[in-house]
Amino acid sequence: MPTYRAPVEDTRFILNEVLGFERYANLPGFSDATGEVLDAILSEGARLSEEVVQPTNRIGDLEGCVRHEDGSVTTPSAFKDAWRQYREGGWLGLAVPAEFGGQGLPYAVHTAVGEFLVSANMAFMMYPGLTQGAIAAILAHGSDDQKSAYVPKMTEGAWTGTMNLTEPHCGTDLGLLRTKAVPAGDGSYRISGQKIFISAGEHDLSDNIIHLVLARIEGAPEGTKGISLFIVPKFLPDASGEPGERNALSCGSIEEKMGIHGNATCVMNYDEATGWLLGAENGGLKAMFVMMNEARLGVGMQGLAMGEVAYQNAAAYAKERLQGRSLSGAKDPEKKADPIIVHPDIRRSLMTMKSFNEGGRALLLWTAIQSDLAHRSSDEKEREVADDLLGLMTPVIKGVLTDKGFDHAVMAQQVFGGHGYIEEHGMSQFVRDARIAMIYEGANGIQALDLVGRKLAQNGGRAVQAFFKEVGEFCETNRADEKMAPFTKHLKKGLNDLQAATMWLVQNAMAKPDNAGAASTDYMHLFGLVALGYMWARMVKAAQVKLAEGASAALYESKIVTGRYFMERVMPETSAHLARISSGADTMMALPAEAF
Amino acid sequence: MPTYRAPVEDTRFILNEVLGFERYANLPGFSDATGEVLDAILSEGARLSEEVVQPTNRIGDLEGCVRHEDGSVTTPSAFKDAWRQYREGGWLGLAVPAEFGGQGLPYAVHTAVGEFLVSANMAFMMYPGLTQGAIAAILAHGSDDQKSAYVPKMTEGAWTGTMNLTEPHCGTDLGLLRTKAVPAGDGSYRISGQKIFISAGEHDLSDNIIHLVLARIEGAPEGTKGISLFIVPKFLPDASGEPGERNALSCGSIEEKMGIHGNATCVMNYDEATGWLLGAENGGLKAMFVMMNEARLGVGMQGLAMGEVAYQNAAAYAKERLQGRSLSGAKDPEKKADPIIVHPDIRRSLMTMKSFNEGGRALLLWTAIQSDLAHRSSDEKEREVADDLLGLMTPVIKGVLTDKGFDHAVMAQQVFGGHGYIEEHGMSQFVRDARIAMIYEGANGIQALDLVGRKLAQNGGRAVQAFFKEVGEFCETNRADEKMAPFTKHLKKGLNDLQAATMWLVQNAMAKPDNAGAASTDYMHLFGLVALGYMWARMVKAAQVKLAEGASAALYESKIVTGRYFMERVMPETSAHLARISSGADTMMALPAEAF
Repeated sequence: MPTYRAPVEDTRFILNEVLGFERYANLPGFSDATGEVLDAILSEGARLSEEVVQPTNRIGDLEGCVRHEDGSVTTPSAFKDAWRQYREGGWLGLAVPAEFGGQGLPYAVHTAVGEFLVSANMAFMMYPGLTQGAIAAILAHGSDDQKSAYVPKMTEGAWTGTMNLTEPHCGTDLGLLRTKAVPAGDGSYRISGQKIFISAGEHDLSDNIIHLVLARIEGAPEGTKGISLFIVPKFLPDASGEPGERNALSCGSIEEKMGIHGNATCVMNYDEATGWLLGAENGGLKAMFVMMNEARLGVGMQGLAMGEVAYQNAAAYAKERLQGRSLSGAKDPEKKADPIIVHPDIRRSLMTMKSFNEGGRALLLWTAIQSDLAHRSSDEKEREVADDLLGLMTPVIKGVLTDKGFDHAVMAQQVFGGHGYIEEHGMSQFVRDARIAMIYEGANGIQALDLVGRKLAQNGGRAVQAFFKEVGEFCETNRADEKMAPFTKHLKKGLNDLQAATMWLVQNAMAKPDNAGAASTDYMHLFGLVALGYMWARMVKAAQVKLAEGASAALYESKIVTGRYFMERVMPETSAHLARISSGADTMMALPAEAF
Repeated sequence: MPTYRAPVEDTRFILNEVLGFERYANLPGFSDATGEVLDAILSEGARLSEEVVQPTNRIGDLEGCVRHEDGSVTTPSAFKDAWRQYREGGWLGLAVPAEFGGQGLPYAVHTAVGEFLVSANMAFMMYPGLTQGAIAAILAHGSDDQKSAYVPKMTEGAWTGTMNLTEPHCGTDLGLLRTKAVPAGDGSYRISGQKIFISAGEHDLSDNIIHLVLARIEGAPEGTKGISLFIVPKFLPDASGEPGERNALSCGSIEEKMGIHGNATCVMNYDEATGWLLGAENGGLKAMFVMMNEARLGVGMQGLAMGEVAYQNAAAYAKERLQGRSLSGAKDPEKKADPIIVHPDIRRSLMTMKSFNEGGRALLLWTAIQSDLAHRSSDEKEREVADDLLGLMTPVIKGVLTDKGFDHAVMAQQVFGGHGYIEEHGMSQFVRDARIAMIYEGANGIQALDLVGRKLAQNGGRAVQAFFKEVGEFCETNRADEKMAPFTKHLKKGLNDLQAATMWLVQNAMAKPDNAGAASTDYMHLFGLVALGYMWARMVKAAQVKLAEGASAALYESKIVTGRYFMERVMPETSAHLARISSGADTMMALPAEAF
């Protein structure tokens, strides 16, 4: 059976010693979450993840969700109790403002604990995850009445939320959507249509489900300009605000999926269901993107979380499984064989995963702090800079952390040999669960296009220039430090490749947009490598400072070795990305469709 | 529902126009399989794959195999009829010598048709696949009596075969195996022990199952030197050679696996079962490697076959699914959206898969011809050269074709967006089935070690030097051809990287074997890229010759574009591999086990 231990020590190192969390104490909520309080939150989140949530993971995979004839849906047996404990701990509302029943703590702290919980059970955590996205959208675009009617109930987990975008013929291209909204004359609308792939669309964990549904108001323009967002509750709130009349919506079926069996992925049918506009008429896409952006960081976190738990299990197996002898002579001569961790190729896998996970965690938490700054800073310039970085990193985190998180789940499964292919060891579930994160909330190809086609050029390239400057300055500042030079050398090389690729896009993609599309996925991964390399250089620097102060801790030594591995073994990929990007779109687009 | 069309035209192009199949007409069996006969075999194999075998694929995944209380196992409902037609067509014995009831055709033809059948249903094809491996071992090491008792029955598919290596505590490290063999005094042995992961270990497709079992004769040396191979039939042949007395062996359980649900993967218990030595006492490992080497090429083929069928379905979906508009302006303005094949990032995925599959097919068929030459040529030198190449390419084909075949199944699934995650579209099954090929018959890390630790150094590096010479000479010969120069330029760069990596190993791995282990997986993939690049250069050359002759065919134009894509977009990876290899083992091995 797979196990999990939350990486509390690494998270603390990143927040406190690398990112200087205490520097932000002036931001609302931050002073409540430093030092011992932060430690207590992380420890308690770790305990919940390890002891309460993780034991439900395999049960969820085996039992899945069941739809009954009346359209109701039962979640796996172990979920109810875990949900109760999760609610009671107030985890859902960790970062929700206090006036709506939350704790108002930093999004960065929410993210740190979120990784632990998702590693413990990704499918389970989708119920609160979607709810948090819906809360964010209602807080950003709802009227005061809507906020007070829905957010407190959702914050305490009594009600949950969903996002309804996809229809059978329209996923990425939301302009094609057909779900209709007809004004009822009383300020409400009648919503009709079919939505698919609706996570947590119907289930038995909450008293009410608040669906946020994209639909087109009768007579609205075609395409994305005519889309509005609606609040469509499963039960209409009655006069006292409690769940009242059943709305005309139902779960038509549950999808048979490759993984995340514990998540009820529903086909939802709306048949003149009552809904209320959330935000402006025809402003649905903008409102939905509030959810979407937060969701994308959450999905990137899922990639990291799956890669981490899979890595942990692979490492444990590698230390325990006896097979063959070390190439440099028996390490455990009194036993019949050495543990497989002595084999360099097994080490290669473990170091690749470890170095990526720790770098990814730093990148995610750094970006989460940008989100806090963008939303909470009183300094307009600081908000702008942070918002730029947040926008730039969102597609990178979503695309790179999920692509690599999946690759690493596969790599961890490989460490188990044939046993990895057998379901009872749990490695297959990590692979199957991780797979969806590359797809939903905008498939990774869409993330790459968002980065190359939108984020790069926004405000004249302000965000990307600021990022290049920050990384370049870090290299420059640390050039004279001989302990840092072996690290900044690789980082600078990666940055040069990224800048060359960016210049290539500037020169070649304006006249021929296909060159941007052809470069996009490689560019996203090249960007991710440089961002992760930057995080590694900062982590190594922090570790070296500590060691120079005389601190003695295995963690700091490990950071320096692991950072060196990342630089030597992972960063070289930047030149291959640059070569591919520079080859352009011509060959790729040359064949007629019939040739495929 | 997924579909499949066998790539007959491409296979013919490779065999006839690239590899010059007719040149080998002097080899036994080859003159029976050229021109129209070859066409007829390929067409009939295609028909069987598309119409008979492919329709059983999803049924096999859904139904799986069922073990009953008496230990008997039922295969999926559709398998029996497909098996009957497969047997009646004589496909199992295509390359088995005529004196044992086969058709004595080239292994290369068997391989060509094999790819089609495996694409159609990988799990189904494991029943004959294991049988063919067992036939090869009996033909190579059996007595005349053993050959005549078992091979004809197996060739007609009345009996099937298995390989029994793995035990719960021993997979790669067979030296640890515990299954015991005690001489019975009558020339037979009593075999006792437990074997796991036994494909086709028990099922209802054949009248008898011939288990080849590795065991240690009482008193034999420890480790791999004391292992012998035994023939252990489910039913002991009676005086007339028909299945007689039931042997003391049984299927204890069926594994719950991530994929290949149609294959019965059994725990096999031997309880003083009767068996006969196959080959020399304590020579079991050598005898088993006859099966293993053939099986490794077969597993490489599985990787290719899964990548191919997944690619085909992705291409069909990309031409059909309407979503978004081309970056260079609407391509299908009368419709609401363009097919997604207009998007460069979708093209990138399709071209990556297509270029790999066609290159992989050429490499597999080229290597299969080496196998024919090694076994059938009357010229000793020709046999030696071919056997060298066969040995060198076996781990490359197994490791690279399965790693990439899986990656491409995932890439094809991604083209489907959310629909790819839903089981009914069949893309998840391709991913889940393809996954095992990276693991069994020696996990890919073991293939990499076989290449770096054994194959490179064998006979003073004779095989690898011959390969470098062949590729180098091809580049040299075609240097003056301006149509070939853009291709040989990339190939030569790749070859230089591979030679530099080889030199690095020569200089650094003798004194420190961990450097070989640390380099192995990257070296295997670097080798694969150069081998595939060489195949692509030869395909492009053949296409250019045809076009220069005035031939007009979309296939030739497509080959040139696809070859260019491979050179521009896939080959650049060689330098990243070289950089990683040259970084050595030190960082990788530096951390203590507790740091993981």
